[in-house]
Amino acid sequence: MRYVKHSAIHMKKAVILISGGLDSATCAAIARHQGYICYALSFDYGQRHKVELEAAKRIAASIHCEQHQIITLGIGKLGGSALTDSKIEVPHQTSDYQIPVTYVPARNTIFLSIAVGWAEVIGALDIFCGISAVDYSHYPDCRPEYLTAFSKMAQLATGIAVESGQLMQFHAPLLYLTKAETIQLGVRLGVDYAQTISCYQASTDGLACGKCASCIIRARAFQQAQIADPTQYWE
Amino acid sequence: MRYVKHSAIHMKKAVILISGGLDSATCAAIARHQGYICYALSFDYGQRHKVELEAAKRIAASIHCEQHQIITLGIGKLGGSALTDSKIEVPHQTSDYQIPVTYVPARNTIFLSIAVGWAEVIGALDIFCGISAVDYSHYPDCRPEYLTAFSKMAQLATGIAVESGQLMQFHAPLLYLTKAETIQLGVRLGVDYAQTISCYQASTDGLACGKCASCIIRARAFQQAQIADPTQYWE
Repeated sequence: MRYVKHSAIHMKKAVILISGGLDSATCAAIARHQGYICYALSFDYGQRHKVELEAAKRIAASIHCEQHQIITLGIGKLGGSALTDSKIEVPHQTSDYQIPVTYVPARNTIFLSIAVGWAEVIGALDIFCGISAVDYSHYPDCRPEYLTAFSKMAQLATGIAVESGQLMQFHAPLLYLTKAETIQLGVRLGVDYAQTISCYQASTDGLACGKCASCIIRARAFQQAQIADPTQYWE
Repeated sequence: MRYVKHSAIHMKKAVILISGGLDSATCAAIARHQGYICYALSFDYGQRHKVELEAAKRIAASIHCEQHQIITLGIGKLGGSALTDSKIEVPHQTSDYQIPVTYVPARNTIFLSIAVGWAEVIGALDIFCGISAVDYSHYPDCRPEYLTAFSKMAQLATGIAVESGQLMQFHAPLLYLTKAETIQLGVRLGVDYAQTISCYQASTDGLACGKCASCIIRARAFQQAQIADPTQYWE
């Protein structure tokens, strides 16, 4: 049997969107597990919970990524979301029927577009993001049909796809998983969820409020997954 | 005959991408001419030719826009373009067969995505951009099929389109015009091209180099349009 050494030349590069939350940490671990050379991408977009960028750095380090870029985006001044506008209160409950006020208009589209741009620069044809259509189904830009349309657009938008004839692949491995299933998968892949932050209004030292919609969904997911919840709260 | 007063309530809002160049100035004048309440949007994305933002302000003022937002985007650090990376030289000639080095990866996608986000916040269903498939046909994100795909994606990405059932409209009124035709149209609409800057490496006081691809295309277009070129050059 001939021994074939894995070489960086044969490995594929991927851009991984990392927010610092539970989903993106799991998604990053999946990309790493699949053998991609990971280029982590995070955004400082005026979010209240900027401490999640510290979590993003920990996650990027944990998957031994080749590079981690944190891109500043001044989109917060456009307003329209409780996550970037301090005048809009973060809700304590999740609504079953409406797009929540924590929705940042076109956020996934903006983030994915920049991922496409970076992928083109580094010569990557794979982009990973941790969106899920299950627990956040009221965010329009977390639906499978949205992702399909984005993918079609990206093939036409970029030089790499146009010139190489190869398609850019968008991987959303959590798209059809509940958050509990995501946690169970992540634990199998060795994700340390104590490193992640989901709270929309976490304290500067990373403690969660335990009351916002994101905290409630996270706590419930650990319970459903029957996995000990490592989240630390203010009180 | 009953006199019906035009009221702002009955006027439609539109987001207009304004770079400061000849095309976006013409596009803005068209939107204004069509009676839209204009929300101008520009980007400070680390471009060499930042003086174009001064031109963008003049253009936004000339169409009496309701608001003009200049959004900071830290995408320059991703590299890959002569427009944002000082290590890559701006070419003096245009190539007929390749995507030029002045192409900023996924730029139009990123800009249009943020326009979509702002449109959603202000309740606009119309977005104008001055892209043209004629003179810049080697930028992949200036092609009609790209714009169609972007439009389909945007309908699925946003709350406004999902909840209202109305489509977001992407207007690219210059898509099939040569730059000479654009200038002729703009002159009829009263555009003052002395206010615009096209040069990729304009001086801080707005003088053009006369040598870069963008300057060459602009000068040729004024010549073809048989309209006096108001561009001021370094030398």
